[in-house]
Amino acid sequence: MANRRIGSSLRFSSLPRIIASGTAAGPMESKGPLARWFDCLVPDDMYGERTPEKAERRFMRDAADIALKAANLTGADIHLLAAGDLLNQIVSASFTAEVIGAPFLGMYGACSTSAEALIVAASHVDAGFADVAMSVTSSHYQSAERQFRYPVELNVQRKSTSQYTVTGSGALVVSLQGGRVAVTEATIGRVIDMGVRDANQMGPAMAPAAADTMFRHFADTGRSPDYYDLIISGDLGSVGSSILRHLMEERGVPLGENYRDAGVWIFDGVKGTGVGGSGCACSALVMGGFIYKQMLNNEIARALVVATGALLSPLTWQQGESIPGVAHAVALEVQL
Amino acid sequence: MANRRIGSSLRFSSLPRIIASGTAAGPMESKGPLARWFDCLVPDDMYGERTPEKAERRFMRDAADIALKAANLTGADIHLLAAGDLLNQIVSASFTAEVIGAPFLGMYGACSTSAEALIVAASHVDAGFADVAMSVTSSHYQSAERQFRYPVELNVQRKSTSQYTVTGSGALVVSLQGGRVAVTEATIGRVIDMGVRDANQMGPAMAPAAADTMFRHFADTGRSPDYYDLIISGDLGSVGSSILRHLMEERGVPLGENYRDAGVWIFDGVKGTGVGGSGCACSALVMGGFIYKQMLNNEIARALVVATGALLSPLTWQQGESIPGVAHAVALEVQL
Repeated sequence: MANRRIGSSLRFSSLPRIIASGTAAGPMESKGPLARWFDCLVPDDMYGERTPEKAERRFMRDAADIALKAANLTGADIHLLAAGDLLNQIVSASFTAEVIGAPFLGMYGACSTSAEALIVAASHVDAGFADVAMSVTSSHYQSAERQFRYPVELNVQRKSTSQYTVTGSGALVVSLQGGRVAVTEATIGRVIDMGVRDANQMGPAMAPAAADTMFRHFADTGRSPDYYDLIISGDLGSVGSSILRHLMEERGVPLGENYRDAGVWIFDGVKGTGVGGSGCACSALVMGGFIYKQMLNNEIARALVVATGALLSPLTWQQGESIPGVAHAVALEVQL
Repeated sequence: MANRRIGSSLRFSSLPRIIASGTAAGPMESKGPLARWFDCLVPDDMYGERTPEKAERRFMRDAADIALKAANLTGADIHLLAAGDLLNQIVSASFTAEVIGAPFLGMYGACSTSAEALIVAASHVDAGFADVAMSVTSSHYQSAERQFRYPVELNVQRKSTSQYTVTGSGALVVSLQGGRVAVTEATIGRVIDMGVRDANQMGPAMAPAAADTMFRHFADTGRSPDYYDLIISGDLGSVGSSILRHLMEERGVPLGENYRDAGVWIFDGVKGTGVGGSGCACSALVMGGFIYKQMLNNEIARALVVATGALLSPLTWQQGESIPGVAHAVALEVQL
C-alpha cells in the first residue's frame, strides 16, 4: 500500500489531475478584477428565480454543467460528487446532486468547503475509489445574509469589518487521465476557536485556523512559502489576512509577496463589499477561474489554496458560544 | 495503484479495521431492546445542560471519548476525524472536533451521515492517507424537533407516520492495525427525489434512495442479500421499510429475514416513538453497539449497514420543494 501520509498532511501519490473547471459568478463579482477568468457572468443575482436559494442552486448547476461539458462528460460518468454550500442542510448541493445523479458525499466546512470537497474528490481518485470525481461549492450574498445575519431587505447597517458573501459557484473535475494540473498534497484543517463572538469579525475568527493549517503544511512538506508561485487564503478579508501574516511571521514562516487573500482580491475596487469577499464560492471561483486557467497558460506552476471557514451558527452564537474556525489547504502543481 | 472501484461501489482492499467503538444513548433508547449494547446510558436527555444542542454535544463527546479510551488513543493520535450531525452548520461535530483537535472533515448527509463518515474514515485509512481515523455522528430528539419541525414544548400532535429522533451518538475508530472487524466495501448514495413533501413521511421519502443504493451494492459486489447475516437500514421506520422491501422485490432482489430497520428495532416496544427512530445516532448506535459487539462475539460475521437520510430543509420545504433522500451502504466483515 502506498503511504500517502506525510505528517498530518496527505500526499496524492498518483497525481490526480484537474481536467476541467466551471465557474459562474454574480454581478458584484463581475465588477471585480477576476471577472475575465469566470466562465459565466450573471448580471442578475436572482438569476430569474423567486428566491435567492433557488438562484444559488442555479449558479451551482451552471458551474457543474460547464465543468462537465468542458471535460466532455455527463453526470453518469462521475463516480463521486463531493459538494457543499453554506445553506442549512446544504440544500444547494443536495438538490444539485439529484440532478447530476452521481454518488454524492455532502460536505460542510463553511467557506472552507471548496478545498474540503476538492480534497475528498482528489483522494478518491488518487486511491482508485473513483476514476472521475467532481467537486462543486456555491454561496450567495442574499441567501447567506438572511440565514446567518439579517435579510438584505432589512437594510441593517454593515460594520466596518463586515465581509460580503460571494455569489457564484466553482466546480472542478478530477481524473487520473488527462490534464496537466495535478492535485499534489493537502492538509486537512483542525478546528480552532480563539473566542471570537462577533459575526462581523469572520476574518479574525478564521486566521488562527489558517495559520495552523499553513504551518503544518509547510512543516509536513518541508517547503517554505516561496515554493509556491501563489498562496491564496479563502476569505480572511483585509483584517483577517493581516492577522494571518502576523501569526505566520511570529511562527517563523513569514508569507511573502506571493500570498494573497481571495476575498480581498475578488472585490478589489468594488464598492460596498466591506473588507472583502467570503463564502464557499470565493475560493472556488479563484481556484477554478484564475488559478486553474493561469496554470493552463503556464503563468503559474505551483499554487497553495487555503480555504478558510468560520463555523458560525446563529443558534450557538445566540447561546453564547464563540465562532470556531477551520482551514483546509490543497496544493496544485503543473506537471510537465 | 490498487483499483478500489467495483462498478459504482468502493472496495477497501487493505481491509481497514474497526478497532474500537463508543456509544452513548438517551433515556428513550435505554428503554429499547438494544440498550444493553450501548456503553453509556444517560437517564436525562438534557444531560445536565441548559439547551438540547449543548446536551447533544455531550453525547457526541462521550461517544468519542469512550471509543478513544477503548482504542487506548487520544485525539492527538487521530489523523482524520470524519463527523457530522443534523444541526445547522453541524455544530455538534464542529465543536467536538475542536476538543478532539484532530484534522476534521465535516459531513452532512442527514441521518445517512453515520455511514458517510465511516466511509470517509475507512477510505482514508485504506488508501494510506491516515493510519488511524475516527467517525462520529450524533442526533437529539429535542434539538432535531425544534430545528426541523416544532419545539417539543409546543406539544404539537405527532402524526401516525411520525418518527422519533434518536438521542445519542456513536463513534468508531478505524485503523490498519489490530481488530478483527474489517470495513470491506461501501456504496455511496445518489440523491433521489420521488416528490414526497410531508415532513412526517421521512420513511417513504428515503426508501427509494435506500433501494437504489442496495440494488447497486448487490449488483457491484455480485452478492445477494443472504450473503449478509444482517442487513440494516438506518431509519426508514415501519412504513419506509415496508416500501423498501417492496421496491427490492420489484427489482428482483427480495430482502429476507436478515433485513431489519434500525429505527424500528431501537424503539421496539417503546411507547410514544411513532413508526420508529430516526437521526444520525440511530444507525450509529446500532452499528457501534449491537453490530460491532456481536461481531466481536462471533455472533455476526457479515453485516451491511444502509444508513438513510432525508435531505429535509424547513426552508426549501416552505418554498414548495419536496424532500430528496440519500442512503450510503457500508459492509463490515469479521476477518479470521
